[in-house]
Amino acid sequence: MEIHEQPIFPHGFSCASRNCGLKPVGNDLSVFYSEAPASAAAVFTQNRFPGAPVLVGREIIRKGRLRAVVVNSKVSNVGTGEEGMVDARRMGIAASVELEVPADEVLMSSTGVIGKRLPIELIEAGLSGIRADLGSDPMLGAQGIMTTDTHPKAISLSLGDATITIVGKGAGMIEPNMATMLVYIFTDAAFDAGTLDRLLRAAVADSFNMLSIDSDTSTSDTCVILANGLAGEVPEERFGSALNAACVRMAELLARDGEGATKLLRARVHGAPDRLAARQVAKSIINSPLVKTMAFGADPNIGRVLMAVGKCFNVDQRPERVTVWINDQLIFRRGCRAEYDEQALREELRGDPIDIRVDMGMGNGDATAYGCDLTHGYIDENAAYYSS
Amino acid sequence: MEIHEQPIFPHGFSCASRNCGLKPVGNDLSVFYSEAPASAAAVFTQNRFPGAPVLVGREIIRKGRLRAVVVNSKVSNVGTGEEGMVDARRMGIAASVELEVPADEVLMSSTGVIGKRLPIELIEAGLSGIRADLGSDPMLGAQGIMTTDTHPKAISLSLGDATITIVGKGAGMIEPNMATMLVYIFTDAAFDAGTLDRLLRAAVADSFNMLSIDSDTSTSDTCVILANGLAGEVPEERFGSALNAACVRMAELLARDGEGATKLLRARVHGAPDRLAARQVAKSIINSPLVKTMAFGADPNIGRVLMAVGKCFNVDQRPERVTVWINDQLIFRRGCRAEYDEQALREELRGDPIDIRVDMGMGNGDATAYGCDLTHGYIDENAAYYSS
Repeated sequence: MEIHEQPIFPHGFSCASRNCGLKPVGNDLSVFYSEAPASAAAVFTQNRFPGAPVLVGREIIRKGRLRAVVVNSKVSNVGTGEEGMVDARRMGIAASVELEVPADEVLMSSTGVIGKRLPIELIEAGLSGIRADLGSDPMLGAQGIMTTDTHPKAISLSLGDATITIVGKGAGMIEPNMATMLVYIFTDAAFDAGTLDRLLRAAVADSFNMLSIDSDTSTSDTCVILANGLAGEVPEERFGSALNAACVRMAELLARDGEGATKLLRARVHGAPDRLAARQVAKSIINSPLVKTMAFGADPNIGRVLMAVGKCFNVDQRPERVTVWINDQLIFRRGCRAEYDEQALREELRGDPIDIRVDMGMGNGDATAYGCDLTHGYIDENAAYYSS
Repeated sequence: MEIHEQPIFPHGFSCASRNCGLKPVGNDLSVFYSEAPASAAAVFTQNRFPGAPVLVGREIIRKGRLRAVVVNSKVSNVGTGEEGMVDARRMGIAASVELEVPADEVLMSSTGVIGKRLPIELIEAGLSGIRADLGSDPMLGAQGIMTTDTHPKAISLSLGDATITIVGKGAGMIEPNMATMLVYIFTDAAFDAGTLDRLLRAAVADSFNMLSIDSDTSTSDTCVILANGLAGEVPEERFGSALNAACVRMAELLARDGEGATKLLRARVHGAPDRLAARQVAKSIINSPLVKTMAFGADPNIGRVLMAVGKCFNVDQRPERVTVWINDQLIFRRGCRAEYDEQALREELRGDPIDIRVDMGMGNGDATAYGCDLTHGYIDENAAYYSS
């Protein structure tokens, strides 16, 4: 099982991408298409201000079948009321007409500024004739959904005859408002929608739900999987492992390309009282602005890791049991500073990725979180995002 | 009731400050002294990795009496094990000998880098003879406890014959590791320790506990009140109101001087299902890196406020009931963008402070949180803090 970063599509999937006038340059509209009917499952943002495409998408995914996904960047269609709901539906209908598939088997996503109306006429005009552009390169589809991402992101992975392909956009906020994560997963393995849903939720729990660029939760986050079955059956366990590995890798790609990021941070917490506690502490480390700026500056200010562990007030913990490593260098042993080579640590912190490992010495809870450093680039991108 | 930012001490209180060699320049050691016995109460950090001075301080405050407080900056005495506990006690004893007060009536605090041993000999030498320096300017004591603060912070307030004086240090991390908040409150009003404790907790709940510079919780946060009674009794309700107002003002001073900050942010949330929900949403707004960078850039990307409200997953809310104002300009009305003058809003965002107000339309919960913008200065201070 190997993950390819020069991805291919599974049998029967294709995509196309265009500039329809939302962005001054670059593609801003993508469609993903399955020539055969596909089982489907999805998870959406938990933000209580979900965008119109998320509200409509929740209805559409109930059927457990999709033939296409249509996505625009630049405007997120959030905070737009009833008009926004109508615009989201119009976008799905335009794609279904163009691709000649049922309207209730098209999922739509939008990513971009909140509180602006979607330029739906531009999107409808852009979709007209796009079927002729359908091609086999997932990277092309990835281009049309980028916001502040610095590069398009797609990976694929083969399991015998079957393939899993993931197209994602990351935690960029260059023109939209916030770190909107959109991830589309395509496979030609055969699974029913219920099984897909279970496998997707398990994979997301340890990958995208453990990813944080800046602790802000988008109103548009969406992760969808389509399985058209053209490669036949694949053992569920084997498929599940492959899906998990591919989702973790995509989460790392998104983290590494977080706004302004210069490096990937991974925080693994083990020995926590339980898995939930491990997840909470790992997220606390990855979200700490002080840990993130330490990583950016390669400044061995590692007491900040203790702070980030200790600020999880509700997690049962004892300082005298906590041990910390950075890239396998022992830094704190049972709550007290260890003897280590500060110069060597400084060198480690200059690298990418940086792995922070914490043993809480309390139980069997284990989790890993994915994030990035906090840099001037983040400030620049977000202090003038709306106006630029 | 007026808050003076050219503060005086209440009757019987004085302070002194010195450089004892912890910092290359500037005072790094302060003592605060009451000539009469004082009732006392304190609240400390909830971080599960508390510093040694916090651990010792929790024992000392049980008696409900203090005569002095001794504070050093530059090294926080956290993550230092048993040696750190001994060093904290030695610091208190050295102050008690110098000031001729009982050793169990001296509270000690340290603020600075985590995981380094306290240079206790320098502190002991620095305390020797400091009694002769005791004077009446609270700003002098405030100087010795500064870390990345750009100016010393002390305020006072008169209630008839009595005075309340607050000395604080802010959310700076220049040489230490994290936003360590230390606040000392002195009064000559007469209260027993139990009443003081109750009044202090009520005041802290709506001021310092609603303050966030960067969502990272220090291992050293401490807030102490000493009441020596030299001005006699003051009606409890009147004293409580004055204490609350003074603590809010000090919280604003600390927020406005957060690392790299150029402006104060205040988020008031009303109409929440209950007070706890209002607090959570107000904190979410003030902590959002995207709201903070918007404030820094004066970029009217106000959909981010909806995002920050909506990411409080556990708060009962309905997007169609949420209304948002910025400096009294209506921005969103019941979840949908309102018509407003974008240029006027941009002008408002250039100002200081910025007031964000959210009506959730759900109930009577009301709370205000205090924070600051996120700027290049924050990155600069924290990417090289340890090494500089």
